Amino acid sequence: MNSTVTPTGVIETDAVIIGAGPVGLFQVFELGLLEIKAHVIDSLGAVGGQCVELYPDKPIYDIPAVPSCTGQELTDNLLKQIEPFEPTFHLGQEVVKVQRRDDGRFDVATTAGTEFITKTIFIAAGVGSFQARTLKVDGIDVFEGSQLHYKVKDPAQFEGKNLVICGGGDSALDWALNFVGKAESVVLLHRREDFRAAPASVAKMKALCDDYEMQLIVGQATGFETKDDKLTELKVTGQDGVTRRVPLDMLLVFYGLSPKLGPIAEWGLDIERRQLKVQDTEKFETNVPGIFAVGDINTYPGKKKLILSGFHEAALAAFGAAPYIFPDKKIHMQYTTTSPKLHKVLGVETPVFD
Amino acid sequence: MNSTVTPTGVIETDAVIIGAGPVGLFQVFELGLLEIKAHVIDSLGAVGGQCVELYPDKPIYDIPAVPSCTGQELTDNLLKQIEPFEPTFHLGQEVVKVQRRDDGRFDVATTAGTEFITKTIFIAAGVGSFQARTLKVDGIDVFEGSQLHYKVKDPAQFEGKNLVICGGGDSALDWALNFVGKAESVVLLHRREDFRAAPASVAKMKALCDDYEMQLIVGQATGFETKDDKLTELKVTGQDGVTRRVPLDMLLVFYGLSPKLGPIAEWGLDIERRQLKVQDTEKFETNVPGIFAVGDINTYPGKKKLILSGFHEAALAAFGAAPYIFPDKKIHMQYTTTSPKLHKVLGVETPVFD
Repeated sequence: MNSTVTPTGVIETDAVIIGAGPVGLFQVFELGLLEIKAHVIDSLGAVGGQCVELYPDKPIYDIPAVPSCTGQELTDNLLKQIEPFEPTFHLGQEVVKVQRRDDGRFDVATTAGTEFITKTIFIAAGVGSFQARTLKVDGIDVFEGSQLHYKVKDPAQFEGKNLVICGGGDSALDWALNFVGKAESVVLLHRREDFRAAPASVAKMKALCDDYEMQLIVGQATGFETKDDKLTELKVTGQDGVTRRVPLDMLLVFYGLSPKLGPIAEWGLDIERRQLKVQDTEKFETNVPGIFAVGDINTYPGKKKLILSGFHEAALAAFGAAPYIFPDKKIHMQYTTTSPKLHKVLGVETPVFD
Repeated sequence: MNSTVTPTGVIETDAVIIGAGPVGLFQVFELGLLEIKAHVIDSLGAVGGQCVELYPDKPIYDIPAVPSCTGQELTDNLLKQIEPFEPTFHLGQEVVKVQRRDDGRFDVATTAGTEFITKTIFIAAGVGSFQARTLKVDGIDVFEGSQLHYKVKDPAQFEGKNLVICGGGDSALDWALNFVGKAESVVLLHRREDFRAAPASVAKMKALCDDYEMQLIVGQATGFETKDDKLTELKVTGQDGVTRRVPLDMLLVFYGLSPKLGPIAEWGLDIERRQLKVQDTEKFETNVPGIFAVGDINTYPGKKKLILSGFHEAALAAFGAAPYIFPDKKIHMQYTTTSPKLHKVLGVETPVFD
């Protein structure tokens, strides 16, 4: 029995994998070969991790026996490879709680309220969870959630308002174009003339500016004004060095995502330069027994941040974790080419041997 | 300058890789990324190592991001991946000499007389070199090369002779069928009724036996008789327990290939249970500085004999070896996805970034 749900909705399982990037996905495979089923949690809304988030279409050349593939193809191939093991994904949620229980297992909880009791944890969180890059203006963070927003949860709350939208990528442009005609006014604020967004969106934005439907300001937010504890104006310094005041009701900032170690830093794990130290290169276990760290997030002597190394670490971590899950079972190395048992686990036919 | 040939025909190079299996091939790739060109030597006549020798058509399921591939496909993909680095292969020859020179480099020589002077050596020899499995009859080995043969170099020397051919696989059957009509007599000796050879060959052999063109004996060689230091008779014990005498001039044994550490055992390397001990899991260097061991042939705490682990080891060994080749150069980790330098080395275009 690998996974059950208690009457209170808590998922009891053998393994929780934090991170659905390539290494987290391959961790599912290596656990699967040992008949350990896993739940996978990721803060992003889709699997693939930074490979898909940062370079979905750029080729990777150093995956062994794969002369060239994109991040998306790598992810798709890994998803196909782990299909026989039917992992359960919990996406768009961040693990906020990891706590040792009296029975030796761990309580795990996410921002979405999903709760687990698990025997082992595999942290394959890469560079950490992706968090919105914040606006660096002293004191403005007090308005986060009221007048300062890094994402649009409910578009209706911005309609009829005077909006300032910061950023030069697709998110900033898409939302600016979306709110033209719905908001009272839309000002797009970007630090330079060049945009990272799709050329068609940029052209459309410029046409709307020409028609006075919206406004583009090239410059940087450097301060703000308030009245009755409300944000009323943004101070914007232009390339000419002149600071202008832009009145607003709502400030939307789309500066992209940046990785943060986040709550992982609070689970009692040994951390060295924002990486998790593992005890040895046999099991890749952290200082907390039962918690393993694989892929870019771990560190050990000689560590190279290669996807390939993460794959190797996932294989050894699976063997390292097996005794926590099957304390009485002796785990033998078997080969996928020849082992009828692994063929059964993989759901493939055993070839007839000579 | 990565490789030159001296006036006496000795190849001077930065790296010699012993073993052209998957890990040896991927070692070419990892060295290539660091701009180190390599010569690859293998005792087999083709690249691919045991993957191709033992299971060319059987699927492998645990290469990351490759849900299923045969040993041959794995090899073909690796060959494609290392194409940009133009490795030189020296196949069908075994390394018999590895000796430290006064200048710190190594003299390397093969059974084919190929000689190298190299700064580094990567032993990726898997389970060792494949050697013919020998006939286990006390004292019969003195006839090896005269009347006892494990391969046919010159078929003419067997014509007109009374042959006993041992084995039940394709080699035994093919040679038996080949010598019928050319040899004075052909006796095929196999320990059981079942054959591993192609069914068509077995059928043909049985038809020839029915026609008294050749003879099949089911049993095992248990002894022999000599006269004037010549092998005259083989003693064969049948399944009925009765021992019979089979007169012969020549004995051909095809019991398949078995891996042997071979000459590697004599190069002063730390060996533990027929594996090469590496100093650490940072560089996978043996006790002899400049000689690295990667893949199934090495051992260290936690070692699993996975192709995947060999790939990881090859990557780290390449970085570990770089200081021997470029003592004054600082080696930086770069990523194939984003590094224009690696793109140049790989011969691919650098994508235009945002």
